[in-house]
Amino acid sequence: MTNWTMARRAEKMNPSVIREILKVTEKPGIISFAGGLPSPKTFPVEAMLEATQQVLTHDGRASLQYAASEGYGPLREWVAHDLLKQGMQVSPDQVLITTGSQQGLDLVAKILIDADSRILVETPTYLGALQAFTPMEPRVVSVDSDDSGVLAEDLRAKAGQGGDRARFVYLLPNFQNPTGRTMTEARRAAVAAVAAEAGLPIIEDNPYGDLWFDSAPPPSLASRHPDGTVYLGSFSKILAPGLRLGYLVAPRALYPKLLQAKQAADLHTPSFNQRIVSEVLKNGFIDRHVPTIRALYKQQCEAMLAALDHEMAGLDFSFNRPAGGMFLWARLPEGVDAVGLLPKAVDKNVAFVPGAAFYADHADPRTLRLSFVTASVDQINTGVAALAQAIRAYRG
Amino acid sequence: MTNWTMARRAEKMNPSVIREILKVTEKPGIISFAGGLPSPKTFPVEAMLEATQQVLTHDGRASLQYAASEGYGPLREWVAHDLLKQGMQVSPDQVLITTGSQQGLDLVAKILIDADSRILVETPTYLGALQAFTPMEPRVVSVDSDDSGVLAEDLRAKAGQGGDRARFVYLLPNFQNPTGRTMTEARRAAVAAVAAEAGLPIIEDNPYGDLWFDSAPPPSLASRHPDGTVYLGSFSKILAPGLRLGYLVAPRALYPKLLQAKQAADLHTPSFNQRIVSEVLKNGFIDRHVPTIRALYKQQCEAMLAALDHEMAGLDFSFNRPAGGMFLWARLPEGVDAVGLLPKAVDKNVAFVPGAAFYADHADPRTLRLSFVTASVDQINTGVAALAQAIRAYRG
Repeated sequence: MTNWTMARRAEKMNPSVIREILKVTEKPGIISFAGGLPSPKTFPVEAMLEATQQVLTHDGRASLQYAASEGYGPLREWVAHDLLKQGMQVSPDQVLITTGSQQGLDLVAKILIDADSRILVETPTYLGALQAFTPMEPRVVSVDSDDSGVLAEDLRAKAGQGGDRARFVYLLPNFQNPTGRTMTEARRAAVAAVAAEAGLPIIEDNPYGDLWFDSAPPPSLASRHPDGTVYLGSFSKILAPGLRLGYLVAPRALYPKLLQAKQAADLHTPSFNQRIVSEVLKNGFIDRHVPTIRALYKQQCEAMLAALDHEMAGLDFSFNRPAGGMFLWARLPEGVDAVGLLPKAVDKNVAFVPGAAFYADHADPRTLRLSFVTASVDQINTGVAALAQAIRAYRG
Repeated sequence: MTNWTMARRAEKMNPSVIREILKVTEKPGIISFAGGLPSPKTFPVEAMLEATQQVLTHDGRASLQYAASEGYGPLREWVAHDLLKQGMQVSPDQVLITTGSQQGLDLVAKILIDADSRILVETPTYLGALQAFTPMEPRVVSVDSDDSGVLAEDLRAKAGQGGDRARFVYLLPNFQNPTGRTMTEARRAAVAAVAAEAGLPIIEDNPYGDLWFDSAPPPSLASRHPDGTVYLGSFSKILAPGLRLGYLVAPRALYPKLLQAKQAADLHTPSFNQRIVSEVLKNGFIDRHVPTIRALYKQQCEAMLAALDHEMAGLDFSFNRPAGGMFLWARLPEGVDAVGLLPKAVDKNVAFVPGAAFYADHADPRTLRLSFVTASVDQINTGVAALAQAIRAYRG
């Protein structure tokens, strides 16, 4: 009998709560507001095809060979230049290309979390980040939040000092997953000031920042506090997630350790994907492409808001109005529990994610996340009507 | 001042010794026997081009979307079927597609290594595995080896039992990196028997197994001891490493934890790459393609052996004669240290990797690894002659 003794950290890994919950939603023909998937309509298939031909024809062998762990030079340069629009002045040397920004979270966890060290997160927060951090066995502490993100005072109170200082606070300032909320300019200033004062590192995750509807969000936390922030970016929402292409920007004090962790994790991100995307990005492609995503998502968000206004009238159902991104956040009437509601909603052919999945602790069982980007406007109308019916039926 | 408190494991990560050593070899025009890079001549650029067009044209949006952490179904099926030739009967459900087989090592480390737990490795062993294991802070114990791989008796002696049982032994039975050696049939039987008896898990890494010259190596350890082995495979050496595509095959007792670790690490391996490779693999492509790699590498290996026979005559320089793979292993004359020799060899325009880089402990300073796959036959002749000159000059 082979004795597979698991590491202690393996015991702490559990099947994704979302995955388990969403199994119930895998039903043909269901209208899903549950997924975190970008609309495939936005994927630049034509541009990918052209770029791939170009790369394989002119640069084929290099694109198929092993490459540097830091990433492909021209892509790192593109990222550094693109970040100017976030108010960030970074050198390409500070950019590390990752296999999706999820890997950035894994690398950060590896080099900054010891067993039992404290880390701070928003309430609620991105589930994938909790999954990336958990194997390294931190104590996860939630910082109180309002519609503008974490509260600076609570952040200060929980930052700690000396040996008890939290290792970092993980923040998603733009169109947050799951809530869709955005940190205001004033809140960013307050949070950056608290972090600087307390010597508290920030991990800033920004996969959705480019998906604004009417105006760009305020400059990043990293632009305000560059030496104290690791910034994570992604091509998943502005090009396509199936490429698994993201990046991190790290202060020089941290970069070498992140690079060593990257090298140990998978040697490097596929050179093939990096060169193709670098080719796609030539000649300002993003500046033409991203506005089409924004317009589509804005239209779909407006459709969902209008449907909610209409269908939820008279129900004690509240929801926010995101200024960009992919998600909105809602709260069910008193006595209606999102996990309990889900199978009944699925019976009526509509799915969502119960908000409880996104809390490190003290979940609000009445909350839920709705994605407005995958379903069409017609499906949104039908799905929201079905959701309202399910709520009414649940309340009896 | 931001207080970047590093995790204890980050302190243990160090710049790759090979990387640092090889900086000296980054010189234009140098003949390098140092790299672990497959010959780019073998990359199937045309087939990739056709497959990419096919996938993007017919399956574009799915190939660019998020996908299951387990990997793309048809690719998992291909792997399960391909492993029949290793004598392995596995279900596609046991196959997990990884971002290169390096990631398989990272996932194994995460779920099987606690701080201070013992793991066993060959002497010498693959440096990238040591780098993947080290962050999880194991005590790495070398098992004595001869030309046929680890010694079964020493493995038994070091396996331990109860709470002191080693978490696993990491083995590379075919055309090992760095030595090029292959574990004999008898040794495989003995090693599998010891592992089964001691309840010692095996991590079997097989990136080079398909690159045999005259006959296939004996069946895998996993085929002899399926419930006690995690098997790692790779497309890097039979297609192209820039795709970062590998896989692991795990016993059912272990698969769910490896899957959770995979999901946390990077969600999934690029769907784009998986679908393209799955397309390339249709209609028996590998059976036509791999023999061309074998023929090329065999020819280059023979050229290097002939050059060594000729140029090293009269020097106390020994080397083995691999039956496949990419590397051979050599030992310098008494008094010649490989690290000391390297800069002098580089002065003469030839590079190699000192063997010391591949030992967990008790390195033999006279050893070196020579790759015969990247340089051409002409370069091999010139390079080996230059190496012999450098050795003669070093000895004075």
